Amino acid sequence: MSMQWNKPCAAAALFLSAMSATALAADFPSAAESDPARLGWMVGSPPPEERMIRFADGSYFQFPAMRWSVAHFRQLMPTVNVSRGLSAPGSLDKRLDEGIDDLTFTPTQSDTPMTWAQSLQENYTDGIVVLHQGDIVYERYFGVMKPEGQHGAMSVTKTFIGTLAAQLVAEGKLDPARSVASYVPELAASAFGSATLRQLMDMTTGIRFSEDYSDPNADVWAHAAAGNPLPKPEGYTGPRSYYEFLQTVQSEGEHGEAFHYRTANTDALGWVLARVTGRTVAELLSEKVWRHLGAEQDAYMSVDSTGTPFAGGGLNLGLRDLARFGEMVRQQGRYNGQQILAPEVVEDIRAGGSQEAFAKAGYAQLDGWSYRNMWWVTHNPQGAFMARGVHGQALYIDPTAEMVIARFASHPVSANAANDATTLPAFNAVARYLMEAEAPQ
Amino acid sequence: MSMQWNKPCAAAALFLSAMSATALAADFPSAAESDPARLGWMVGSPPPEERMIRFADGSYFQFPAMRWSVAHFRQLMPTVNVSRGLSAPGSLDKRLDEGIDDLTFTPTQSDTPMTWAQSLQENYTDGIVVLHQGDIVYERYFGVMKPEGQHGAMSVTKTFIGTLAAQLVAEGKLDPARSVASYVPELAASAFGSATLRQLMDMTTGIRFSEDYSDPNADVWAHAAAGNPLPKPEGYTGPRSYYEFLQTVQSEGEHGEAFHYRTANTDALGWVLARVTGRTVAELLSEKVWRHLGAEQDAYMSVDSTGTPFAGGGLNLGLRDLARFGEMVRQQGRYNGQQILAPEVVEDIRAGGSQEAFAKAGYAQLDGWSYRNMWWVTHNPQGAFMARGVHGQALYIDPTAEMVIARFASHPVSANAANDATTLPAFNAVARYLMEAEAPQ
Repeated sequence: MSMQWNKPCAAAALFLSAMSATALAADFPSAAESDPARLGWMVGSPPPEERMIRFADGSYFQFPAMRWSVAHFRQLMPTVNVSRGLSAPGSLDKRLDEGIDDLTFTPTQSDTPMTWAQSLQENYTDGIVVLHQGDIVYERYFGVMKPEGQHGAMSVTKTFIGTLAAQLVAEGKLDPARSVASYVPELAASAFGSATLRQLMDMTTGIRFSEDYSDPNADVWAHAAAGNPLPKPEGYTGPRSYYEFLQTVQSEGEHGEAFHYRTANTDALGWVLARVTGRTVAELLSEKVWRHLGAEQDAYMSVDSTGTPFAGGGLNLGLRDLARFGEMVRQQGRYNGQQILAPEVVEDIRAGGSQEAFAKAGYAQLDGWSYRNMWWVTHNPQGAFMARGVHGQALYIDPTAEMVIARFASHPVSANAANDATTLPAFNAVARYLMEAEAPQ
Repeated sequence: MSMQWNKPCAAAALFLSAMSATALAADFPSAAESDPARLGWMVGSPPPEERMIRFADGSYFQFPAMRWSVAHFRQLMPTVNVSRGLSAPGSLDKRLDEGIDDLTFTPTQSDTPMTWAQSLQENYTDGIVVLHQGDIVYERYFGVMKPEGQHGAMSVTKTFIGTLAAQLVAEGKLDPARSVASYVPELAASAFGSATLRQLMDMTTGIRFSEDYSDPNADVWAHAAAGNPLPKPEGYTGPRSYYEFLQTVQSEGEHGEAFHYRTANTDALGWVLARVTGRTVAELLSEKVWRHLGAEQDAYMSVDSTGTPFAGGGLNLGLRDLARFGEMVRQQGRYNGQQILAPEVVEDIRAGGSQEAFAKAGYAQLDGWSYRNMWWVTHNPQGAFMARGVHGQALYIDPTAEMVIARFASHPVSANAANDATTLPAFNAVARYLMEAEAPQ
């Protein structure tokens, strides 16, 4: 195995979201100092060598270059389209609320209040949209992110895949009680084979999937190497695609006992979806959701060298389209004049998964949460639930506040534990503000 | 240099359009036999090995796999988006004419009439749209090409770049009499340096650019290797980007004497555009044309490892969007309620270039034609002009017939000489048919 495969890369970094923060943002340049537009990555004909970002040299996902890369994945690697179809985008009305920037909240485990506007800098936000009752009340873009641009959703991808699976369950095309091997026989000998589809969808499988980055033999590197679309180095003998990798995954512990956030589960779920529908997850996402949502842009997914989309983290999409997806879910699957998802899919997500199984994963800042259909469910008084991706990607739905927040970010620390303290109270502060504005005077 | 670089690849194949056909279509399976949907390339989870298409193994552009690849370039290599913006697509009304399929014409140098419908099979057509007075009168898709799909435009890309350059001339931002070196000093020592911008735009430069595929030292391989986005093989010492390659091009003959169809000219023109505007040609195409055209899809361009779009042949776009572009040009630059190109740009294209210079290139089937702003001008009685790309890509504008034809194809022979005999008379037959339908009874 050459050096190249031991360097952090995007595919591998996507796994980090379950890890506690091992570095503090204070160790890094600020959002303003690391602004990718200000630094001028890839500007010039040609860009100067010190501002060049290449996929093959492995540095594209190192901070601060990563702040450019998250908005330009397609320029670095092969991708497939997620077509919106050809009709006109659905409208998203604006009812901007200038009061939001000055809202204050107190970050978790802090005594010092912070404004909403400050939190965007603190969290290295690339773009953020707040919907209230379906209208845009707040919208900002930073750095190289533009309204007509697409940004890596990272592990928010998983939520799309889990939602598609739940929809196929609602349609009677998938049985959550059946074993994974009964859908994909090639996985029979792997740890996934004996798990039920439900365990896969809720990540309670007992699989060995080490994410210890200090260990060159960690499974996370094998997964990244298998999915890397570049030609394999001379002498490489490992798996050469996501599907080949999944067949090598060994068991560890029992299925169904504890929540373990492991990206490989979503890739295995993606395989089930592809096998049952005869479509890639990118085609399925287009057919089931994107063509009906009134999306204003196509989305896209990165692929391995065999054309398999990276179900665990390869989706890229526009910020307002992410918000549209959230609004559709908030409205029980009905949006843009169509019932896109079955209402019971959303009910099942909102009810959440096992809080007991979730607690065993030990997320200090996510006390009482659960994980269902690849959504993170807060079980807070407002019944909020969210999608999360490394470096601060978020889709947050607060049904009581009738609020949806879509955020893209490029926080220097991959694990969301590094930004939750200034994210979750901030989102909740906006929710309360919007609820108060609605309350009878 | 490893074997890999000596295999034909897309970038290299783009150069072939000026060559005479060295193989006959009769040597290949028919359109129906080689239908990529029927052959099932890249279908399955995973696709079977004998139906797998990978970029790195170099076979993706060999017939018949190539018939799948031309509609899936982004899945094989890195690309950049050409944004349509976020507004609703412009309408394209349908007024289908069922009579077109049965039109007959006689292929060049043949005595046997052929129907229009037959010609589509003969030419391995992937998709074709005929506009008359701006309405769709004919539209067909074959194989894996879909209305919401994007197809490689191959050298039709050049026409977009040449048109952008002509537009910048009209805006006073480029002076066609100035030397290339005065815009891009890095090209001063190359053969391009002393050429005028006009010579570049009309491909009358005197440059050494061998396209002899039997010669492993031909320039065409060096160009392809430089632009290949994959990591360079161990020991590779050649140019590592399109821009680096262009600086190595040597002179051969005098500038301004003869038309020589050489892709490197367009890449050099792309460099001038990027330097003068501070934008990549992909960004420029979006800003100047795509955002105003009412395009129904984003387009995209392949890039080298430094993010430079392949100006000579890297554009991919939807078929109806190609037709929209043609209709805009037919209408003197005015379309979708906007004056998108200056009318004098279209006048300059229609007037054509030097027929004397063109004749020296010796195209047997293109007698009396000329080349201007990277358009092929027929100088026929109707004043038709066209964009051409290898394997049958075409945009044909007949101002007299008020007709635009956009065609994507995957003909087994790259050079258009192999399909012109059943293309040019067929297009003209439809033009005459549409003119007759308009004539007073």
